[in-house]
Amino acid sequence: MNDMDKIMINPEAQIDEGAFIDALVVIGKGVKIEKEVYISKGVKIYGKALIKSGTYIGEDCIIGHPQRAHLKEIISQKKRITDFKSPMVAIGENCIIRAGAILYSEVSIGNKCETGHNVMIREKTKIDANTLIGTNCIIDGNTIIGKNVRIQTGVYIPLFSTIGNNVFMGPFCKLTNDKYMMRKKYDLIGPTIEDNVSLGANSVIFPDVKIKNGSIIGAGAIVTKDTDENDIIIGNPARFLKKVPEDWK
Amino acid sequence: MNDMDKIMINPEAQIDEGAFIDALVVIGKGVKIEKEVYISKGVKIYGKALIKSGTYIGEDCIIGHPQRAHLKEIISQKKRITDFKSPMVAIGENCIIRAGAILYSEVSIGNKCETGHNVMIREKTKIDANTLIGTNCIIDGNTIIGKNVRIQTGVYIPLFSTIGNNVFMGPFCKLTNDKYMMRKKYDLIGPTIEDNVSLGANSVIFPDVKIKNGSIIGAGAIVTKDTDENDIIIGNPARFLKKVPEDWK
Amino acid sequence: MNDMDKIMINPEAQIDEGAFIDALVVIGKGVKIEKEVYISKGVKIYGKALIKSGTYIGEDCIIGHPQRAHLKEIISQKKRITDFKSPMVAIGENCIIRAGAILYSEVSIGNKCETGHNVMIREKTKIDANTLIGTNCIIDGNTIIGKNVRIQTGVYIPLFSTIGNNVFMGPFCKLTNDKYMMRKKYDLIGPTIEDNVSLGANSVIFPDVKIKNGSIIGAGAIVTKDTDENDIIIGNPARFLKKVPEDWK
Repeated sequence: MNDMDKIMINPEAQIDEGAFIDALVVIGKGVKIEKEVYISKGVKIYGKALIKSGTYIGEDCIIGHPQRAHLKEIISQKKRITDFKSPMVAIGENCIIRAGAILYSEVSIGNKCETGHNVMIREKTKIDANTLIGTNCIIDGNTIIGKNVRIQTGVYIPLFSTIGNNVFMGPFCKLTNDKYMMRKKYDLIGPTIEDNVSLGANSVIFPDVKIKNGSIIGAGAIVTKDTDENDIIIGNPARFLKKVPEDWK
Repeated sequence: MNDMDKIMINPEAQIDEGAFIDALVVIGKGVKIEKEVYISKGVKIYGKALIKSGTYIGEDCIIGHPQRAHLKEIISQKKRITDFKSPMVAIGENCIIRAGAILYSEVSIGNKCETGHNVMIREKTKIDANTLIGTNCIIDGNTIIGKNVRIQTGVYIPLFSTIGNNVFMGPFCKLTNDKYMMRKKYDLIGPTIEDNVSLGANSVIFPDVKIKNGSIIGAGAIVTKDTDENDIIIGNPARFLKKVPEDWK
Repeated sequence: MNDMDKIMINPEAQIDEGAFIDALVVIGKGVKIEKEVYISKGVKIYGKALIKSGTYIGEDCIIGHPQRAHLKEIISQKKRITDFKSPMVAIGENCIIRAGAILYSEVSIGNKCETGHNVMIREKTKIDANTLIGTNCIIDGNTIIGKNVRIQTGVYIPLFSTIGNNVFMGPFCKLTNDKYMMRKKYDLIGPTIEDNVSLGANSVIFPDVKIKNGSIIGAGAIVTKDTDENDIIIGNPARFLKKVPEDWK
């Protein structure tokens, strides 16, 4: 370690000798990095954090970003952020987190997940194994996402959403959670996207709507109501078109 | 200061002793930082800039980014950017500017404003107090935004727009300013969003359209014409649905 | 060079003496930087790369980001990324690449092009001269883009798209390339946007659709079929409105 590195990497961090840590990396107290991990230049990891074996973190990512209340505490008490112990962020084995991602504390990502660039995932998000999250996706927290989900570029998932397994979320589809847009008292609640659903590019799903197993939502559809299983839904406002044909899975 | 810090922080900058400046921060000539300010790692602040007391700037933000003409001058004369004095960027008291934001010179932000991550705000934008600007929002400049505005994630505000007070801009709503998409000569002009308006998720407002006081625009609506006060407007192209009910504010 | 710089800039890189390289810059083996180039703080350039004369690279850009297969190789072999030689990324003369852009290896950009912030361009993308690419645009690779194209903020161009010359792509318009959203076997193919086309804000163009010379697509249109030349198309799903008037170019 040279002088700069001593400032940047908290001596209490547990870093496996078989991990690769590039220059200009910041690692906080309470971070644990397993073997075969690859940390790129400019990455900041705040504790508590667990980066499991074989995982790659791209340039300038922030892992373990403080939640709102903790950030306020850090600011008001002028704490060095690497000395602050947030609730655990955990990234599974053999993940690829590409450059520019920001993952908050209390995010949990399963094995073999992969993200694009500049992804932002807030606290209390749990993502199961083998899920992909495209560039510029935003997940606002308090959300559960299943396994084998394909979240394409630019997708937006607000607070209190639920996403099943094997879901395809087309580029820039948006879930919403505020029915009255702050004009009337309303408990925020996102949609429920059941297993095997496909959401089209730039579609919008209304708050508290259930998209049932196997349904397909067309590109640009504005979906205001629940679907039945295996419905195809299109338009603005969206309407039932037909059932998913047999020869489509 | 160690050697690296001397290269990075211009000695003419005025930094209050009660400010917290983390490592790897770049501060230009003509920057003034007040007491209780918290500057995170990797932040770049170019002068002239004023960061008022109690404000937090997250990792890797760029404050005082040069405008186009100034950038051309810096490039062609190979000036060190920390030596260049742009027109003033000013951030009010007790603001939170989260990691990755880029604020240009001649941006002015009132007290107690807050941004998400990777926000981009260009020159000649004036934002009043208590306004929130969500992650990935882009404000292209020459725009006035009122107080207590809630700008959700991914909103786009082009050049020459006007936003009143207490406005709610739903996630990924877009204002536009070029009626003929460069096919015909046209002076760019954005919409006017009056006080107390709510814009739905992923809605699009046409250039020079006035959304009058209290109106609600549905998610995904494509709004080509002015509204009356308290109209509810939906669809593509958008049409009048009904007046805002009495029991909504 | 101080110690830090020696770690960061590979001694085999060819950097013209007339180039301006700011602090905290990372330059890999196989990078060539011509005269009058301006490289800002925090930039990372991986080889092979060619930055031609007069070009500006803004803060924290990553130029020559490894493609998927190369990234896997770098991770598994724990190579220092500055030692890895990817296929060439080439940026022409007098370009402006603004802060936060990520350009992959095998991207080629012509002279006098300009990007906004946080642009992401993946491999095998070829962009001709005098083209503008707005903030937060994402180009997913294997795509050819002509000259004098105006790509506004937030545009999405997926794999296997073709864009002609003098095209206007309005803010947040999206091209798509997967007709069945992974529900049925399908060879991904993006749209073809011919010369002189204008695409409206937040419009969506379906896979394999041809937008013919001079056509105009309205804001928010969901375009499922080919157009004829000089058609104006609007709505969801989009329909023919009228021919482009004579007094529009």
